[in-house]
Amino acid sequence: MTFSVAVAGASGYAGGELLRLLSGHPEFVVTTVTAHSNTGQRLVDVQPHLRSLAHLVLQPTTAQVLAGHDIVFFALPHGASGEISAQLDSDVLAIDCGADHRLTSREDWDAFYGGDYAEAWTYGVPELPTRNGKQRNALVGARRIAAPGCNASTVALSMAPGIESDVIEAHDIVTVLAVGPSGAGKSPQVTLLASEILGSANPYAVGGTHRHIPEIKQALRAAGAGDDVSVSFTPVLVPMSRGILATSTARLQPGMTAADVRSAWELAYAHEPFVHVLPEGQFPRTADTLGANSCLLGLAVDEAAGRVIVVAALDNLTKGTAGAAIQSANIALGLPETTGLSVDGVAP
Amino acid sequence: MTFSVAVAGASGYAGGELLRLLSGHPEFVVTTVTAHSNTGQRLVDVQPHLRSLAHLVLQPTTAQVLAGHDIVFFALPHGASGEISAQLDSDVLAIDCGADHRLTSREDWDAFYGGDYAEAWTYGVPELPTRNGKQRNALVGARRIAAPGCNASTVALSMAPGIESDVIEAHDIVTVLAVGPSGAGKSPQVTLLASEILGSANPYAVGGTHRHIPEIKQALRAAGAGDDVSVSFTPVLVPMSRGILATSTARLQPGMTAADVRSAWELAYAHEPFVHVLPEGQFPRTADTLGANSCLLGLAVDEAAGRVIVVAALDNLTKGTAGAAIQSANIALGLPETTGLSVDGVAP
Amino acid sequence: MTFSVAVAGASGYAGGELLRLLSGHPEFVVTTVTAHSNTGQRLVDVQPHLRSLAHLVLQPTTAQVLAGHDIVFFALPHGASGEISAQLDSDVLAIDCGADHRLTSREDWDAFYGGDYAEAWTYGVPELPTRNGKQRNALVGARRIAAPGCNASTVALSMAPGIESDVIEAHDIVTVLAVGPSGAGKSPQVTLLASEILGSANPYAVGGTHRHIPEIKQALRAAGAGDDVSVSFTPVLVPMSRGILATSTARLQPGMTAADVRSAWELAYAHEPFVHVLPEGQFPRTADTLGANSCLLGLAVDEAAGRVIVVAALDNLTKGTAGAAIQSANIALGLPETTGLSVDGVAP
Amino acid sequence: MTFSVAVAGASGYAGGELLRLLSGHPEFVVTTVTAHSNTGQRLVDVQPHLRSLAHLVLQPTTAQVLAGHDIVFFALPHGASGEISAQLDSDVLAIDCGADHRLTSREDWDAFYGGDYAEAWTYGVPELPTRNGKQRNALVGARRIAAPGCNASTVALSMAPGIESDVIEAHDIVTVLAVGPSGAGKSPQVTLLASEILGSANPYAVGGTHRHIPEIKQALRAAGAGDDVSVSFTPVLVPMSRGILATSTARLQPGMTAADVRSAWELAYAHEPFVHVLPEGQFPRTADTLGANSCLLGLAVDEAAGRVIVVAALDNLTKGTAGAAIQSANIALGLPETTGLSVDGVAP
Repeated sequence: MTFSVAVAGASGYAGGELLRLLSGHPEFVVTTVTAHSNTGQRLVDVQPHLRSLAHLVLQPTTAQVLAGHDIVFFALPHGASGEISAQLDSDVLAIDCGADHRLTSREDWDAFYGGDYAEAWTYGVPELPTRNGKQRNALVGARRIAAPGCNASTVALSMAPGIESDVIEAHDIVTVLAVGPSGAGKSPQVTLLASEILGSANPYAVGGTHRHIPEIKQALRAAGAGDDVSVSFTPVLVPMSRGILATSTARLQPGMTAADVRSAWELAYAHEPFVHVLPEGQFPRTADTLGANSCLLGLAVDEAAGRVIVVAALDNLTKGTAGAAIQSANIALGLPETTGLSVDGVAP
Repeated sequence: MTFSVAVAGASGYAGGELLRLLSGHPEFVVTTVTAHSNTGQRLVDVQPHLRSLAHLVLQPTTAQVLAGHDIVFFALPHGASGEISAQLDSDVLAIDCGADHRLTSREDWDAFYGGDYAEAWTYGVPELPTRNGKQRNALVGARRIAAPGCNASTVALSMAPGIESDVIEAHDIVTVLAVGPSGAGKSPQVTLLASEILGSANPYAVGGTHRHIPEIKQALRAAGAGDDVSVSFTPVLVPMSRGILATSTARLQPGMTAADVRSAWELAYAHEPFVHVLPEGQFPRTADTLGANSCLLGLAVDEAAGRVIVVAALDNLTKGTAGAAIQSANIALGLPETTGLSVDGVAP
Repeated sequence: MTFSVAVAGASGYAGGELLRLLSGHPEFVVTTVTAHSNTGQRLVDVQPHLRSLAHLVLQPTTAQVLAGHDIVFFALPHGASGEISAQLDSDVLAIDCGADHRLTSREDWDAFYGGDYAEAWTYGVPELPTRNGKQRNALVGARRIAAPGCNASTVALSMAPGIESDVIEAHDIVTVLAVGPSGAGKSPQVTLLASEILGSANPYAVGGTHRHIPEIKQALRAAGAGDDVSVSFTPVLVPMSRGILATSTARLQPGMTAADVRSAWELAYAHEPFVHVLPEGQFPRTADTLGANSCLLGLAVDEAAGRVIVVAALDNLTKGTAGAAIQSANIALGLPETTGLSVDGVAP
Repeated sequence: MTFSVAVAGASGYAGGELLRLLSGHPEFVVTTVTAHSNTGQRLVDVQPHLRSLAHLVLQPTTAQVLAGHDIVFFALPHGASGEISAQLDSDVLAIDCGADHRLTSREDWDAFYGGDYAEAWTYGVPELPTRNGKQRNALVGARRIAAPGCNASTVALSMAPGIESDVIEAHDIVTVLAVGPSGAGKSPQVTLLASEILGSANPYAVGGTHRHIPEIKQALRAAGAGDDVSVSFTPVLVPMSRGILATSTARLQPGMTAADVRSAWELAYAHEPFVHVLPEGQFPRTADTLGANSCLLGLAVDEAAGRVIVVAALDNLTKGTAGAAIQSANIALGLPETTGLSVDGVAP
């Protein structure tokens, strides 16, 4: 049995990555693609890397066009999916790659996004350890799923095992991320021009203002963090189109050792097909995850600093967005979780 | 039925790409990987992007280790495959990604490579138009195949349709290529350091000395070029890990028009799954072919200059090397030609 | 004695480079900077690399604001300088970095630019060999100077020596350029986003449509090319913020040898402070010219192809635009030509 | 009066940057350049960007060759300068860009470097606040100076003002750096190949093992940090040839406010020509410091996380190494501190 699929927002970067992965998925068939300003054009003229989908033509993003599919993926700007998704039948699987349905706290939404608040959907990071078991459990049978923020899921996957197992303190987490500009989308703006990014490292949203912070805290609270969870979060744009390399540190709980650390993370991800803890002394590079649905983690304990350092690499468009969405869809529909998803990166 | 596969030279870039593609091939099963200096290590420790092959351990590159497989891919430095491949059974499919078996002329070999000359094997660019039909025909049932040089196949695919159809002159072809450094391999040398390549465009082998020139001429002669075929060939290293963007120009034959040009190229590649001629006014970008087995071509006629300009993009490690090798293997073994190969690039 | 200087268009890339160079010029003092949409802001808030000019505030680009200076540099979009520059006193030195005053042929202007045609000013490439001696001679005492197009001057400097000395044919020149995106300016557009440029080589203006083509032909005609001069010109965007690496080839005139070639180019540039012919076997890299006013040339003769290959590297913003403008200003005003300009690149 | 200068290690990246800056220094004249494996070659053939020094030829690195100069800069691998510098007259100004003379603690040397310990020289970061005033004071009249580690000085300049003024805690500092590969030098190794670095972010020395950690702690102790100073330090290689973007965070001392923070840093660097604190809400990019001797700092206080975030940008080869060396030489010799050094970066 195959499932019919529509992708709303097919002309952007997240939409393009969804389609690249969907075109290789044996159970999903993309029949409809929609966009805002390129309607009437062939998809392949807007996304020239998607040669296998040359038969698709972009249609307008309306509830009518999106109706009648088994699955609808939304890859729209924040705030754009709520109204349309509300018109979909409740048995349609709707997966939103935007932020609209991620936050359970309206207060957080108001503080970091603003505009109309939409209810939270099931969070699409299956591997996340929570106090109630893996987040995967919540995804089985779900019909409304919120794909994660790419930075947020990277940091949450990095820290949650240590929190869930009481190995690290959730207070005073510090994370700094090297990120590629594709996460910022395809809308032209000066700060995202190649001339501004090439040969440079450019910080942004410094000082606790990035919108993924409440999402990280929410995930870590689900893993057992108390109300005093705190995350100093600084993203730095670097000259690679894709990729997130998150260096996250937390203080060890008193009495915890390097062996406890390794044990906590290895246990958390021992059977995960897409999240791999590297051997002692190895640390991940983003290139090793390019185009793959994998998240690679390297661990170190700095005794002198009293901190655990977790370095995580993933592809912001794949495991960070589109791959997570498809993985979640597989789970929701009862398919094997890895269907249509690769763990091998395109390197070098 | 599945075929057992060995890859010799698994720790390099071409070997890594072969394995990335092979790991997704439904009919091929990699059972053996060999290397020179990393024997005894897990493949995944040397090629950390190949998560799905974590069970493989590098063995020494010897005829004994390589014996007993249905297919052996060689991804060794030039000059290294001849002795070992000679010891393989004649019914084993051996595919060499090095240069050893590409040139039919010993004179060319002596002039551009030197060292022992080995006989030419069947050339592994299925789509190439020749005076005897597509090169594909020669690959059916072959058991010794020479995968092409990445630059050579890009230029040959660019120019052969016009030569085979008598639309362009084979004399006075000029081609300039923007190429990523992965084509130069993984051996450390100062000129390939990131500090030397980042933020710079660096020409090399200027003035007719590049080793792929005789290979291009050989392919164009097969397409009908006379002895006066000439190719001015200049490669320029640019800061992208993978990719070849070849701009090739040739003079129009007298009386030929832009319509003749378009018709010649479109006819040549009309039914090709992996070589696509873009619509009028569109030109390819290397990113659109990243990790894909596709070669994209854009055409223009510059009336004022009296020249056809063909811009071709491909991934040097995929369609330029490993993908071509697997595509050729599919043909040789009677499998569907596209098995295990994707036409969609990883972009942006 | 020092000269007072105004820069119109100070918020763009060419304007920024003018100011970077001017801030180190011992005879020029920048007193006025103007912009379009950032007026009232400190220059350094828009151009944060120009720390030494933190005292300057952006003013509107009007004839009144620009009046009263010894020198006015225009770094405006094409078509914007004509009206304002016409209002400057005739003894003010006005230098236009846009295209408005480069072309002597209205027909070329209409064909490649369109809109109102403005008369040509003295062309600002001092080193160019012409049939009447170096272009430098025409710049002495000039008060209206057109700085060159960055691609055009690179190709003209590459080919003019061979044409002026009858060593190469001006018919059937082929040039392919690897160029950084800063030459395309700071206006946001999707094709110039970092995500589109990183990891990719992207051709544009293929097939004889680039606006620098008539400018090249004009310069080569001044060097002695006949009406049959032809240039196949293909630029390729590559992932480096600055730099042009032009590979230009032409057929040798009958009877000419590699020695004739070397002699022609070395003679042409023997005493030039900023244009250097590299020794036999060396070819330039763009990084070696970064931020410098130098143009480096490497020469080869491909006997088999019957062509000279000239590889030229320069920084599009420095020697290609702002440096050429200041060098020309030095000449016009009777200052030592090298004042305030460096020949050393910032590498690696 | 001019000073004669020798540069030992002229073929490497730090040596090249020293020479680029020295060639524009009005009081220093480079008369001698030495190298290890390129002796007898013209400097410009090894460092093709240094066109203005085409008259210099590389000599062997011996005490005899280096004798007789007013100033000797050492840009040698760690461990190589001690023996030779010991043979220089005591009134010669010797400046070491290696690590040999940076650490005052033999214990630190043994733990992080090993091999023979050489005594510490005066530390060459003039702007560093210490409990005894600026480090500049110690440099006046010095004849043995240790140029800083590029990462170490970036972090020390970021944190010292807050420590010296008791605004932040020196315990539990966390810093993550995006760094270009040129800091790792010109020796070929696989991990520094362009293919490995392009399109990727690669961490190294994770977990408290980087050699610059004791140097940072030493500088922060001089600024008033107690023995409990701790620094979690993680460098990440990113695809830009030059540049360091250090994101450093520390906890606020109880009762301290954002205003206290801004005041502390602005006071510390108010009159510094090369270290600039950006206005509220602005953060530095490495490109804005390219080739300049400037260090730009952006400040934020994250109330929710209880941490100060200081983002610092500099060019590892310029302000991080060669520029700091020349700035220190200027001070030592009583020249104006800014002689021959620019504060303007080459951007974009």
